[in-house]
Amino acid sequence: MTLPSTYLKMHSTLHANGTLTMDMSEEAMPAPKTGEIVVRVEATPINPSDLGVMFGWANISGATTEGEGTSSVLSMPVPPQGMAVMKARLDQRLAIGNEGAGTVVAAGDDDYSQSLIGKTVAIMGGGMYGQYRCVPSMMALPLKDEHSAKDGASSFVNPLTALSMVEVMKMEGHKALVHTAAASNLGQMLNRICQADGVDLVNIVRKQEQVDLLKGMGAKYVVNSSDDDFMAQLTDAVHETAATLAFDATGGGTLASDILTAMEMAAARTPSEYSIYGSTTHKQVYIYGGLDVSPTTLSRNYGFAWGIGAFLLPNFLAKAGMEVAARLRGRVADELTTTFASSYTDEISMVEALQADVAQRYFAKATGTKYLLLPHKDI
Amino acid sequence: MTLPSTYLKMHSTLHANGTLTMDMSEEAMPAPKTGEIVVRVEATPINPSDLGVMFGWANISGATTEGEGTSSVLSMPVPPQGMAVMKARLDQRLAIGNEGAGTVVAAGDDDYSQSLIGKTVAIMGGGMYGQYRCVPSMMALPLKDEHSAKDGASSFVNPLTALSMVEVMKMEGHKALVHTAAASNLGQMLNRICQADGVDLVNIVRKQEQVDLLKGMGAKYVVNSSDDDFMAQLTDAVHETAATLAFDATGGGTLASDILTAMEMAAARTPSEYSIYGSTTHKQVYIYGGLDVSPTTLSRNYGFAWGIGAFLLPNFLAKAGMEVAARLRGRVADELTTTFASSYTDEISMVEALQADVAQRYFAKATGTKYLLLPHKDI
Repeated sequence: MTLPSTYLKMHSTLHANGTLTMDMSEEAMPAPKTGEIVVRVEATPINPSDLGVMFGWANISGATTEGEGTSSVLSMPVPPQGMAVMKARLDQRLAIGNEGAGTVVAAGDDDYSQSLIGKTVAIMGGGMYGQYRCVPSMMALPLKDEHSAKDGASSFVNPLTALSMVEVMKMEGHKALVHTAAASNLGQMLNRICQADGVDLVNIVRKQEQVDLLKGMGAKYVVNSSDDDFMAQLTDAVHETAATLAFDATGGGTLASDILTAMEMAAARTPSEYSIYGSTTHKQVYIYGGLDVSPTTLSRNYGFAWGIGAFLLPNFLAKAGMEVAARLRGRVADELTTTFASSYTDEISMVEALQADVAQRYFAKATGTKYLLLPHKDI
Repeated sequence: MTLPSTYLKMHSTLHANGTLTMDMSEEAMPAPKTGEIVVRVEATPINPSDLGVMFGWANISGATTEGEGTSSVLSMPVPPQGMAVMKARLDQRLAIGNEGAGTVVAAGDDDYSQSLIGKTVAIMGGGMYGQYRCVPSMMALPLKDEHSAKDGASSFVNPLTALSMVEVMKMEGHKALVHTAAASNLGQMLNRICQADGVDLVNIVRKQEQVDLLKGMGAKYVVNSSDDDFMAQLTDAVHETAATLAFDATGGGTLASDILTAMEMAAARTPSEYSIYGSTTHKQVYIYGGLDVSPTTLSRNYGFAWGIGAFLLPNFLAKAGMEVAARLRGRVADELTTTFASSYTDEISMVEALQADVAQRYFAKATGTKYLLLPHKDI
């Protein structure tokens, strides 16, 4: 196969004048060394974790695009506090895009790398928003023959995050899980995992249609935060499942605190669990997303055995170790289009991704909104 | 010594009709068994941790007192959510008062208990708001001959909490501490401990006179949250000390979040510590009090390596184990009137403690306000 000598790649850069830009540049086609492969990236999702690197603390509502086609430059203002927090990335052209999938088009001279040529693989490791990506062969997850690059584009972030929630539950000694924004791609995966593994899961959603969707998938506990009796529903579900661990994708507002309140009220139904300082069982909420960017508000009316913290997949995998990571990856490849199937709101090209109106749409972190970037799509 | 046949003891009770009452009852004088002592309680502090048990979620501003003298009954309304959270204590006459000190007036027939007769000891274990208390001899901390019951009244809660902060710092791998409401009795103890042990401590206070007080004690880092450049001062101090652990006595408002923001901005000054998802060093705030009862507000603009949780001394000591607890207790006895000296706003009798106006005063959780209850004081 003859490869082009250059390819297009997207970057995000923070400038000292208080703006953040995203643009595209022509890069030299890499030559794979021993143990490396070059993947033609055919599909790569735009996840909330990508949006953090792409836009940081920039003000997306002030976005504008100058230039045309592959010369498009997307530009946004950054408030002073954002500049301070992001100081360390100043003037660095950051490669973006955490994961994706495509065809192996070149390989180093070792047998394993050579064996991958022509295969469809999923890869993770940054810099995926480009037409080609050279990675260590060991990092690639070969897909089954019947699976396409679009099937495998989201093989890592959502599947491994959903699997990690169950791992954390076991590692930290909890009995069941609570999950918010539960009708998302990730939430649906988590339902399939928990049903297969016999783990009780309390799903929190915001709309009746999301209740119906999850109930239709066989979910046993689904509570709607828009209902007047939400707290009563949640407390009942937490009491029945004995869930003391929650993963919250929304981040802002009172939801994390409401979950802790429900856990405490559920614990208070069992007097032996109760002391004068509240329930003695540790109750934990991990915030792993920021669908709601407003501040998190904690009422603290749930005793003295609680914690809230951030959850980030790479930090968890590093802590859990290679063996756990390999086990979780293997399960993803086996169940790619069943347990770990993703769906997308729209498919866009790299040039489209740099248009201000398009960026404002894929930046809108509404539950279930997820764009797929196709680096070889025209325009 | 001839002991009276009965003594007075205070209780707090939650009633199904939505009120909480505190009153006093006459109890039979206990006869100490082998391994036990009876202590004539002469001084016992009213700590924030006691207030939680005394008043729970009752509305103190609606407090009234009926009856007179030892028949006084203090009564307060409890809002519905408070009733739900406190359900497990319904109709229980809870003994109150965590710690205190006094003279050993009777003892079981074993040599160790007998050896304590006439000695002044500090004790912890609940039910201290009464004129006498029977406890296992091993739980008593014998004071040095030159120390009075008033000297030893606060030998446990504040001293062990302050010492535990330094223990947690070491156990969780942090290098320095941040402490809020730092001019309190506990905060002053913590300064003396940290200076003696060579631990860097960033003190946060709200008034210039508190800055002066702590600087006068030799504190190196004192920042005033009322200053316009508070965040800059705090970030500088956190950067100099590399503090990534804070203990917050206030609980409410933005202070816990501001501390995490300062830690993140300090980390961003060292680019190697920084990743695109923010600083990778875990930053932790433990809330151990509720001087500000308003909700805790988290801006979450500090990456993905942070946690906030509640800290409760008994839970920590249980986790740390007997050996650590014994080491900390020994240090308290040795340094009772130096490192661990307490001062009090006022001294009151048990009858006074049941008067609504007095209760509203000692319930006011202003920094540095601390009442000493004298169970044998007249009226």
